[in-house]
Amino acid sequence: MAGGREVERLIDLMAKLPGLGPVSARRAVLTLIRKKALLMAPLATAMAEVEATVRECRICANITTDTFCEICRSPKREQTLLCVVESVADLWAMERGAAFKGRYFVLGGVLSALDGITPEGLRIPELVRQVLEGDISEVILALNATMDGQTTAHYIADQLSESRAALTSLAQGVPIGGELNYLDDGTIAAALNARKTF
Amino acid sequence: MAGGREVERLIDLMAKLPGLGPVSARRAVLTLIRKKALLMAPLATAMAEVEATVRECRICANITTDTFCEICRSPKREQTLLCVVESVADLWAMERGAAFKGRYFVLGGVLSALDGITPEGLRIPELVRQVLEGDISEVILALNATMDGQTTAHYIADQLSESRAALTSLAQGVPIGGELNYLDDGTIAAALNARKTF
Repeated sequence: MAGGREVERLIDLMAKLPGLGPVSARRAVLTLIRKKALLMAPLATAMAEVEATVRECRICANITTDTFCEICRSPKREQTLLCVVESVADLWAMERGAAFKGRYFVLGGVLSALDGITPEGLRIPELVRQVLEGDISEVILALNATMDGQTTAHYIADQLSESRAALTSLAQGVPIGGELNYLDDGTIAAALNARKTF
Repeated sequence: MAGGREVERLIDLMAKLPGLGPVSARRAVLTLIRKKALLMAPLATAMAEVEATVRECRICANITTDTFCEICRSPKREQTLLCVVESVADLWAMERGAAFKGRYFVLGGVLSALDGITPEGLRIPELVRQVLEGDISEVILALNATMDGQTTAHYIADQLSESRAALTSLAQGVPIGGELNYLDDGTIAAALNARKTF
């Protein structure tokens, strides 16, 4: 039905992407076929290129096409400030904020008894090594405000208790532009407890 | 920020797909990178393969990897029944219904004064040639129930007035499982006008 096995296989693969289901994958593939020269060919090339060149930064596990990522290589970044994030997506989100001038450490997940994710699976020993052996003055635990994220933050804090680095975490409160009416009770309580002089 | 130019280029290209915006494209690319061997490599290959092999069926303009598509080649399909659809997506939708046993003719769009789409741009002369020269007993105009779709249907009917083939169109009415409460007035009126003995 879908114009041959190759096309059906492409639809099946596209449907595995987050945000695309079987129906939208079919629509995407039809668009690709309609824009063969303008979109499909460049996309196939770009994908093959990224697949061949992308790897983990040896220091922070960010995505890079070199041995070390742009951030770890940059002399402009504060070398003594280390921000621990769960994923590369979170690192990118932090970078979009453009407020952090230090380096990152990507855990690659959070501890989870349910999913069998252990400290070793998360590069926590490597983080401890970098903090203890390096000249780090502050470790910011920028983990998600979920149960697993906070468990992981506490575990890391425990492991780093011997280091001289200060341990901090992101402030919790009302998001910029956020309406109290739409916030959950936990956030309102956290914002109230951390209230500042106006 | 996004791990090198190659990755950023891939995100930009992915964001051009229908259903994906800048944010979901980023998420999709991160998934691709995480599943490099399992998803990105096969996807790049499948895309390059389809890009290299896919083309329009010489008869009906369906997508195929051969000169003629599966449907046009199939001896099981009724050769005298021709269903005119706007796009390959509509052809696939008809095939999912599995109720039609004839062949198709993909117009590639509908007439539109606004977008400057003329009969020649839609392969209408080729359709007329196939119907007049071939042994076609019925032409089903399965065009979308939009203004442009219906204009195109009327134009085609006009062009085929000399042919002996019967001209039909899809019935309009209440969709299976449809609730009257959620239907537009035009559909309800059409369903009422075409009411059948119970």
